[in-house]
Amino acid sequence: MRAVDIIAKKRDGEELSANEIGFFVQGLVSGEIPDYQVAAWAMAVLWRGMTPAETAALTMAMVRSGEVMDLARLGPVVVDKHSTGGVGDKTTLVVAPLVSAAGLPVAKMSGRGLGFSGGTLDKLEAIPGFDVSLSTGAFLATAREAGIVVAGQTGDLVPADGKLYALRDVTATVPSLPLIASSIMSKKIAGGADAIVLDVKVGKGAFMRTLDDARALAEAMIAIGRQVGRRVTAVLSDMNQPLGLAVGNALEVAEAIAALRGEGPEDLVEHCLVVAAEMLVLGERAADPAEARVQLEALLADGSALERFRRWVRAQGGDPRVADDVGMLPRAPVMRAVEAPRGGFLAGIDAEEVGLVSVALGAGRQRKGDPIDPAVGIVLGPKVGARVEAGERLLTVHAHTEDDADEAARRLLAAYTWSEEPVATPPLVYDVIRGE
Amino acid sequence: MRAVDIIAKKRDGEELSANEIGFFVQGLVSGEIPDYQVAAWAMAVLWRGMTPAETAALTMAMVRSGEVMDLARLGPVVVDKHSTGGVGDKTTLVVAPLVSAAGLPVAKMSGRGLGFSGGTLDKLEAIPGFDVSLSTGAFLATAREAGIVVAGQTGDLVPADGKLYALRDVTATVPSLPLIASSIMSKKIAGGADAIVLDVKVGKGAFMRTLDDARALAEAMIAIGRQVGRRVTAVLSDMNQPLGLAVGNALEVAEAIAALRGEGPEDLVEHCLVVAAEMLVLGERAADPAEARVQLEALLADGSALERFRRWVRAQGGDPRVADDVGMLPRAPVMRAVEAPRGGFLAGIDAEEVGLVSVALGAGRQRKGDPIDPAVGIVLGPKVGARVEAGERLLTVHAHTEDDADEAARRLLAAYTWSEEPVATPPLVYDVIRGE
Repeated sequence: MRAVDIIAKKRDGEELSANEIGFFVQGLVSGEIPDYQVAAWAMAVLWRGMTPAETAALTMAMVRSGEVMDLARLGPVVVDKHSTGGVGDKTTLVVAPLVSAAGLPVAKMSGRGLGFSGGTLDKLEAIPGFDVSLSTGAFLATAREAGIVVAGQTGDLVPADGKLYALRDVTATVPSLPLIASSIMSKKIAGGADAIVLDVKVGKGAFMRTLDDARALAEAMIAIGRQVGRRVTAVLSDMNQPLGLAVGNALEVAEAIAALRGEGPEDLVEHCLVVAAEMLVLGERAADPAEARVQLEALLADGSALERFRRWVRAQGGDPRVADDVGMLPRAPVMRAVEAPRGGFLAGIDAEEVGLVSVALGAGRQRKGDPIDPAVGIVLGPKVGARVEAGERLLTVHAHTEDDADEAARRLLAAYTWSEEPVATPPLVYDVIRGE
Repeated sequence: MRAVDIIAKKRDGEELSANEIGFFVQGLVSGEIPDYQVAAWAMAVLWRGMTPAETAALTMAMVRSGEVMDLARLGPVVVDKHSTGGVGDKTTLVVAPLVSAAGLPVAKMSGRGLGFSGGTLDKLEAIPGFDVSLSTGAFLATAREAGIVVAGQTGDLVPADGKLYALRDVTATVPSLPLIASSIMSKKIAGGADAIVLDVKVGKGAFMRTLDDARALAEAMIAIGRQVGRRVTAVLSDMNQPLGLAVGNALEVAEAIAALRGEGPEDLVEHCLVVAAEMLVLGERAADPAEARVQLEALLADGSALERFRRWVRAQGGDPRVADDVGMLPRAPVMRAVEAPRGGFLAGIDAEEVGLVSVALGAGRQRKGDPIDPAVGIVLGPKVGARVEAGERLLTVHAHTEDDADEAARRLLAAYTWSEEPVATPPLVYDVIRGE
């Protein structure tokens, strides 16, 4: 088997066999297939696409390229969730303790923020003492003892993905649906998931800009799941405006705690209930989403979810009192309230721009490895659809300096669009697609 | 300017600017743009194609990547020819002395055979003493003094092409029309040509298998010529069966000498007259091909072309007596006549298979640098369209061993197809496309 023949086959639009894909992924990891052949292949895949069988074969070849977590001891069905990333997306901080309180084991690997998207690990690190860098042993022990753990990647999972992604990033081959889908799915499968709820974000602040693109990605991942025996449910959710009100690490932790206390914000709570309900169904803790929802609402109302959050924070070295006193979280020296320059109906809050402003404030990173400031960020007031009076508080900037706050306020005001006519509240969830 | 943005632009089907293409070619040669980015770009170019302006910009950027021959002292218009390669294609050996005898300077760089295609340098080296490895100084001096020189590449011409081709070869990006066209044209332009006759071969023994593909390549090269001020004429000629009768280095030299003596074979002579006539027109030695042809036929008839061949051989260190005694050429120890196994009309002689058999006999190479045997090869008898009696001589194999001859005879018989019904002689030239 020769790499150049496999490239030519894909270039000509033919279907690669599982053997050919396995040979290619193995050669990529071992270095026997040089980067330039991988790059040409990736461009040919971007051009020609992949069949569901090819995408599944690629996913499993990537899984086989490294270690695989064995989570069987945690329970009969291990359910993971994955968000394609957005602005203000603190869903995991709410959903993990919620489903854990419902009896579902949570042993989740998560990532850091990059570009306009935040990352769960950065948010968790805003909690004093919270440790996201666990060994494989500590990860598994925490999962078993506390029933919940969220940490950075442990062990040598899917080395093929890291290598392939680094190459795609510099060869303009990132936006290939089968490559995106197999990258996500291989990491979830190597992480030990039996079933997966995918939170596919759609809109201006998401990787997928249109509902059609998001649906195509969801369906590609569901098809992989079907081929490799993993149940997959996809929630297509809005990311035209930020999720919830807080954008920035400590601010988002505070908001997640508020949600766990039953104190909203409404869109965040609703979104988390939808995702958590689908996880309970896949984890066989509820017969259907409606039944799951009754359970989950009770766990919020009676404080079980918040108590599970405390246990989780403690288990990873953090100070659990944060659940009752968000004043313990880092605070930015400058807080600047920004007033509405006009009255009217809020027609849009550009999520990407809000994300980019939060990066400019120091909450995120432009390049891997950049340091971040956990305290800074933005807290929105009214959201799209609201009627706003001129002079009303539109948002608050939490900044390191007055100059930063000035610049952020200026950019954020430009990220709002207005209407004279009433504007409908945009849907939170466009669709839920269940694999079986 | 970033390489990844240029790749993305081409990936999205947009037109690259001359600046962007220049940046890319420069980075490729300097090594600042790594191979994997060049490979992804090449696949994107194969996918999306290039506009005439892009192809011309790529050609000239490649020309600028190295030295350029200055042939202005040879004459007002320097005309080169280029064949896309075929089986039995000894056209240069006939055309070069022919047009030189007509007063056109010939200072041509040529190549070696690879795969089923032969190479002019290998053929010339079958002549005792003939030296094809000349310094730039010796190349120019020979051109000035003898009016004719054909040698391997001298100087550092088009280093971008060598590098890009090596990468295309291992990334399945060879069959891209703009990359092929710019590769050929950049070498001809860097070689000092003001005008170029392209002999684009079409058929089973050629790189372009269909007339449509050949026409597309011809038109791409003519378009480059138009953009960069080089007059280009393309001759689309048949390569379904070999050109002439001889395939193999010394055998082809002998056949070229026969042609220069006015002793055929008919198809080779006709083909050479068509190509040479177009060269004379571009070189402003004749008003039109018909006028050129009258001149050329006279130069064949009165021995001027043969005399120019003698001068040429002498100028490059060879023994000019070969023009009068082809017995001086190396001869294979085994000559095996192969008889027609049946009677009927000859419907096809698979040029690619004849080429591959000649390689198996030792006349060509499977890999760059393989040694070759100048003596071995094949001499065909009747060609497509002929009526053949069973037992008549079909061809002669010139081999190193009896076993080689057995195997070659077996394969060659299988390369012939037959018909009970009369078969028309296939056209020699499908079309001549003139740039202006």
